[in-house]
Amino acid sequence: MSKWRRRRGAPSLDDVAGNGIINRRALLGQGFALAGAASAIGINSAGAEPLADAPWSLAFGGITPPVQSPSPFEKDVVRTLSNPKGEFRNSHARTPHHLIGGTVTPNSLHFSINHCGIPNIDPTQHKLVIHGMVKQPLEFTLESLSRYPLVTRMAFVECAGNSAPMFSKEPLQVSVQALHGLVSNSEWTGVPLSTLLDEAGVDPSAKWLVAEGADAQMLDRSVPVKKAYDDALVAIYQNGEHLMPGNGYPMRLLLPGYQGNMNVKFLRRIKVVNQPAYTYFETKNYSQILPGGKTWRFHFVMEVKSFITHPSFGLSLKEPGLYAISGVAYSGTGRIAKVMVSADGGKSWGEAALQGPIHEKAFTRFVMPWRWDGQPAVLMSRAYDDGGNVQPLRPEFVTMRGEASKPVTTPLAFPNQHYNSITSWSVDNKGEIKHVYA
Amino acid sequence: MSKWRRRRGAPSLDDVAGNGIINRRALLGQGFALAGAASAIGINSAGAEPLADAPWSLAFGGITPPVQSPSPFEKDVVRTLSNPKGEFRNSHARTPHHLIGGTVTPNSLHFSINHCGIPNIDPTQHKLVIHGMVKQPLEFTLESLSRYPLVTRMAFVECAGNSAPMFSKEPLQVSVQALHGLVSNSEWTGVPLSTLLDEAGVDPSAKWLVAEGADAQMLDRSVPVKKAYDDALVAIYQNGEHLMPGNGYPMRLLLPGYQGNMNVKFLRRIKVVNQPAYTYFETKNYSQILPGGKTWRFHFVMEVKSFITHPSFGLSLKEPGLYAISGVAYSGTGRIAKVMVSADGGKSWGEAALQGPIHEKAFTRFVMPWRWDGQPAVLMSRAYDDGGNVQPLRPEFVTMRGEASKPVTTPLAFPNQHYNSITSWSVDNKGEIKHVYA
Repeated sequence: MSKWRRRRGAPSLDDVAGNGIINRRALLGQGFALAGAASAIGINSAGAEPLADAPWSLAFGGITPPVQSPSPFEKDVVRTLSNPKGEFRNSHARTPHHLIGGTVTPNSLHFSINHCGIPNIDPTQHKLVIHGMVKQPLEFTLESLSRYPLVTRMAFVECAGNSAPMFSKEPLQVSVQALHGLVSNSEWTGVPLSTLLDEAGVDPSAKWLVAEGADAQMLDRSVPVKKAYDDALVAIYQNGEHLMPGNGYPMRLLLPGYQGNMNVKFLRRIKVVNQPAYTYFETKNYSQILPGGKTWRFHFVMEVKSFITHPSFGLSLKEPGLYAISGVAYSGTGRIAKVMVSADGGKSWGEAALQGPIHEKAFTRFVMPWRWDGQPAVLMSRAYDDGGNVQPLRPEFVTMRGEASKPVTTPLAFPNQHYNSITSWSVDNKGEIKHVYA
Repeated sequence: MSKWRRRRGAPSLDDVAGNGIINRRALLGQGFALAGAASAIGINSAGAEPLADAPWSLAFGGITPPVQSPSPFEKDVVRTLSNPKGEFRNSHARTPHHLIGGTVTPNSLHFSINHCGIPNIDPTQHKLVIHGMVKQPLEFTLESLSRYPLVTRMAFVECAGNSAPMFSKEPLQVSVQALHGLVSNSEWTGVPLSTLLDEAGVDPSAKWLVAEGADAQMLDRSVPVKKAYDDALVAIYQNGEHLMPGNGYPMRLLLPGYQGNMNVKFLRRIKVVNQPAYTYFETKNYSQILPGGKTWRFHFVMEVKSFITHPSFGLSLKEPGLYAISGVAYSGTGRIAKVMVSADGGKSWGEAALQGPIHEKAFTRFVMPWRWDGQPAVLMSRAYDDGGNVQPLRPEFVTMRGEASKPVTTPLAFPNQHYNSITSWSVDNKGEIKHVYA
C-alpha cells in the first residue's frame, strides 16, 4: 500500500484493440487514471522553489476591452476562405476543427457559405412573411419574434457538400479543416416554426413550405410541413448572441439534421403550398447524381458521421507515449450511440468514451486513450447512431456513391455531396500525419 | 371543427397566478399554443404578393472574413467597463444579459475582472507546477495538457461580488448588466485536476491546495483537496476555442459553483499543503463581514439565484399583450429544480418552464408566458435547486446579510458579496420598467 493517494477502483488498463488502443475505462468518472501516464505524456519533473517569474508576472497587463477576442498567440486559429477578396462568386469559410476543442463552435469560427456575399440587414426593416395556404397571412419582425417564449437547443449545421474532397480517387494531403470544415455546432435559440404556422393557420391539405432568404441570392428550398411540426425553429440567437451576419442575421430557418442550405438564412418568407417548388437549388445544386445515373432529389438528412480532429493532418506527434485520440460525431437522424476507434487501419476497434450530455442532431465529442509505440499506425473513427445507422466503411461507400475522376477541392465538383464515410490518418515512425484511405 | 390545422391536445390556457401569469403548459412540447397569440403579440397581417425587395436583396453583399463578428447593428451589445482607459487599478467588464439569449455566454461578452490588467502570455513559455506534499513535483504545459483525454462541461462562473449594487438601501435605476453582469456561463474543456494530482501523487494527510496565477497580481487562493477530487478542471478551452485572455489564457482553474476568484486564471502553480494559506484574497477581499460583526471566511459556494433578463430595466413594453418573461437561474450546489415567477410583486406565483437539458452548476433559462393588461405590474423570479435550497426573499435576506448605508455601485464597497436574493422589475402603465424592491 503506497503512501500516496490514489483513487480506489482503478480500472484494468489493458489494451482493448490493436496498436495501443486503451480501454476507455481508464477514464475513471471524470478523470483519467493510468499509472505512469505523466512520464508517458512527456511531463517534466518540476524544479525547486521559488518559481521563476515570467515577464507577464512582473508588469501591469493590458486593457480590458468592451468586446474581448482571442490571444494574439491564437492568430492562426481562423477560417480558411475560398474567396478572400469577395469576388462576385460564391464564398466558403471553413471551421478549423483541428485547432479547437469541446463541442460548441465559437461564433467567430462557424462555417459560412454565401453565394452572393453577406447582406448587411437592418433588423428593424427586415420582415418574415408566412403566407400561401394559410387562414391569415402574417408578417413577423425580430422584435415580435422576441416576444414569444423562445426555445434553446444544440444543433449542428452541415453543408451537403461538406467533405467533398473525400470523393477524390487519391487522398488529398490537407487538414480536417479543408476536408470537413463545412460543419459546425451551436446553441441556437428561436421560436418553434410550428408556433408561427399555428398562428397563421395552415390548410390541412398543404404538404410543403417554400422558405426564401432575403439576400441577393434569394435561395429558396421546399421543406415538408412535417419537418416544421417536428423540430424546426426560426432562430434568432446563436451561442447566446444574435446570429452572425454570415449565419443568417437577423433570422434563419433551423432544420436540425437537414442539409445546411435548407436552413435558409436571412429568412424572409415561408409560403405554405401543396407541392414542392422544384427550385434551382433543389433540382440542380443539391440533387446529387448517383453512379447509375439516378438522382437524389429531396434527400435532406445528413447521415451519421465522425472524424478525428486530434491528432490529424497538420499536427504531429512529438514522441512515443500516451495521447488522446479525439474527434466529433453527429447524425441528422438522432443521437450518437457509439463511436469505435481503430489505430491499426480498421483491423481492430475499441469503443471510445463519449462526452455527455449527448444531444440529438448535435456534435458529440469522443475520446480514446492511446499509447503510441513509435511505430506506424492508422487512426480511424466510426460512428453509430441511436436509429441503428452506421458510418459506412470507404469501399462500401465508394461502391454506393462513386468517386471523382480528378481531385475534388471544392464542393462544386461532382460527385460532391453527403460524404459520410470514414477519415483515416496515418502516423509514420517520425510522428508525421498523412491522410490515407484505409 | 375548423378547417385550419391545429395541434391536438391544446392545453388549458388559464392564468395560474395573478396579473396575467399563464400556465406554462401553453408551451406545448417545443411550441407555444395560445389562440389569438399573434394579435396579442402585435403581429401584422401580411400584404399581398409580390414581397417588396429590400436594398440588401438587390445587390451583391459583403466579403466573408476569416473571423466573423456580429452585425454592425449589434454595436451596442458590449460589456460595460469600470476602467476603460486601463488605469493602474482593477477593472470590471460586465455581461449584457438583457441583450443576449439562450444559456451560453459568447466568449466576446464573458465577464472579466482583472486587478492588474490582462497579461499577454506566450503559451509555449507558460508552465503549471504541481508541488508541495506530493511524491513527485510535476510541470505541465499547454501542449502536455492537450495530450490528456479532455472533459467538457457547462459551468457558470460568478464573481463573489456580483450583484453588489443590490445591497444599496434604495433600488438603483440601472440595467441587469450593471446589477448582475459579473456572472457568465460557458462550455469549458480541460483536464480533471484529480488526474493531474494523481500523477503527482498527493500525500493523504494533505487537506488543501494553494492555487496561484501568473499575472502581476499573482492572486492565490486555498482550495480544499476534496473539491479537486470532486469536479475541478484545469480548463484550456472555453466555448470551443482556447481561453480568452481576460478569462485566464492559456489555462485556468475551474471550480464549478465556487466564487469566481477561486477559479484562478493564468494558473501557474498548485501547491499541496496541509492548511490553508490565509492569503490576502481569502482573509481580506473575500472574507465577507456579517451584520453581527462575524466574518465568512472560506465561504466558497455561490448560492441558488435567478434574475429576469427580459423584460428588464432599459427595455420597455410597447403595448399591452402577450410577452415571454425570461431569465437565467443557477446554483453552485447543483441543478435548478424549479423557478417561480410573479407578476404581482410576490402576492402569487406560477411555475416557469425550464429549458433542458438542465446542467449542474450552470445556467438554466426559464420562461413564463405573460399577458400584460397595460396596468402596473411587478415581475419577480425565485429559483429552487435540487439540494432543497431556495432563493431568499429580500426582507429575509437583508435581515441575514445587512444593507449598505449608501448606494453600492462597485463590488469594492461593503457589504458586497454573495447577494442571491430576488430582483424585481416594475412595469408602469406606459410599459416603462424600473428596478424596485418588492
